[in-house]
Amino acid sequence: MVSAPTQELLFLGIDGGGTKCKASIADSRGQLLGSGTGGPANPLHGVARTTDSIAHAAAAALADAGLPPESMSRLVAGAGLAGVNLPSLHRVISQWQHPFAAWYLTTDLHIACLGAHQRDEGAVIVTGTGSCGYVRVKGTECMLGGHGFPFGDQGSGAWMGMEAIKAVLLAHDGLGPKTALTECIDRELNARGLAIVEAMAGKKSSEYARLAPGVFSAAEGGDEVARTILRAGADYVSALAGKLLEYEPPRLSIIGGMAERMRPWLAPDIAGQVAEPLGPPELGAVQYARLEYEQTETV
Amino acid sequence: MVSAPTQELLFLGIDGGGTKCKASIADSRGQLLGSGTGGPANPLHGVARTTDSIAHAAAAALADAGLPPESMSRLVAGAGLAGVNLPSLHRVISQWQHPFAAWYLTTDLHIACLGAHQRDEGAVIVTGTGSCGYVRVKGTECMLGGHGFPFGDQGSGAWMGMEAIKAVLLAHDGLGPKTALTECIDRELNARGLAIVEAMAGKKSSEYARLAPGVFSAAEGGDEVARTILRAGADYVSALAGKLLEYEPPRLSIIGGMAERMRPWLAPDIAGQVAEPLGPPELGAVQYARLEYEQTETV
Repeated sequence: MVSAPTQELLFLGIDGGGTKCKASIADSRGQLLGSGTGGPANPLHGVARTTDSIAHAAAAALADAGLPPESMSRLVAGAGLAGVNLPSLHRVISQWQHPFAAWYLTTDLHIACLGAHQRDEGAVIVTGTGSCGYVRVKGTECMLGGHGFPFGDQGSGAWMGMEAIKAVLLAHDGLGPKTALTECIDRELNARGLAIVEAMAGKKSSEYARLAPGVFSAAEGGDEVARTILRAGADYVSALAGKLLEYEPPRLSIIGGMAERMRPWLAPDIAGQVAEPLGPPELGAVQYARLEYEQTETV
Repeated sequence: MVSAPTQELLFLGIDGGGTKCKASIADSRGQLLGSGTGGPANPLHGVARTTDSIAHAAAAALADAGLPPESMSRLVAGAGLAGVNLPSLHRVISQWQHPFAAWYLTTDLHIACLGAHQRDEGAVIVTGTGSCGYVRVKGTECMLGGHGFPFGDQGSGAWMGMEAIKAVLLAHDGLGPKTALTECIDRELNARGLAIVEAMAGKKSSEYARLAPGVFSAAEGGDEVARTILRAGADYVSALAGKLLEYEPPRLSIIGGMAERMRPWLAPDIAGQVAEPLGPPELGAVQYARLEYEQTETV
């Protein structure tokens, strides 16, 4: 038997979300070697699917880096996942029989914050499929919102899609104002009235979030119903930002698929305090993997 | 072999809903012989569960009537089910390999209307686990609302429970006013903040509807957040009633688990036009079974 030569450890960062997960591999000097993507990785919507998506994204990143599949065991993995702020989900995902050298788990918000500010202090609001806020100052953190679809996540893509459907159904019954969203949802789902209910019954939040670009377009085109939805969503995000700024973080960024188009709808005093993110969440996850590994090694 | 004597046909009425289904058996002279209940029978939440619940309720009604299980094949069944306004669900439930002599299927609203007015004309609003409106005049019918949880059914028990949870989560984050609903949901779910999300993740509408009595109590006790929820729900029900009254039905009734406690919250001009239901939906279903059977026999 020949013993394997000691190989350099690599750092894998995972950014998991409701629609896909992204993986990046960097060496110990911080040099990016490759990246890949996998399917949805929100444990609230399925634990096995989440870990499958992560393994798939990691394998894709390894291939992109020109590394063999066996290198999986050289990876020190750090993952930021939606939903693991719930203790029961954190426990079950932590206990995954992972294929890596090490496995560190935190929230999607923590790695987004690390990535956006390139340091372990700051505040972020993520508004993509879901929405939530996070602030970390002097080693203590606070999470706001992120309660999940359908009872929370105001201002998110899924919330916008849901509000659009409610408005279109009310208009269909003559119980709400006519709206351009009727045409917009018809184009997206090929459905009107009750057929919308059939098309969406039991659908996940990502299917609702698909309708959000149409809500932006209708609002930008002057549709009053869409404007009301977007104003309510932006008011929530502005209130969330105001709450996070009370902690006096060094920087605040708003990221995620809805962030750019929502900016003009934010309260002006809030919009003026929003800083560009310096890096994406998956690089924050790489940093997290390294920070956790160094801490473990030096203890 | 002895051939079985020809036995009198009996009429079975089924009233299916999101939390339970009720069955009543009457003879051909309209004499009530027995009744029974079964589990949830909303096909939107499971077709097999719905037909199981119906069979169970029918068996219980037979036993209550002192009839042997074999009498199932003597029953001419008429069922009013939530959700079968959706064509795909109507088809699959119609094709059920039922154990009855005949099987007629219509909406929960149609049988509620027949029961409430003791004739095949009138209007009803049902607000229980879900909410919807129905009017039938001169043989044509119109259905409003009833789009299902979570995008429709304003003013229903499930909708109230959902709105209460949203308000409590906003208050928990300091993004909404404090409310007595926090204590009320804590008592019901033994949960606060994120634990509410864990407790409700993936739950069906009936679990949300369980929270509605607490919303009424808080509103009746003067809690402003609960009052705002109830006012919005009652405004929707009033608007729905106004729309139904445009068809000039001979009578309008509001029925279901929320109807009684919602009455003081309705718009005064609407409340004045609401008539007491003359009979329950399950008796409407018995009438429906007889009407359909007589029509089939005479064609």
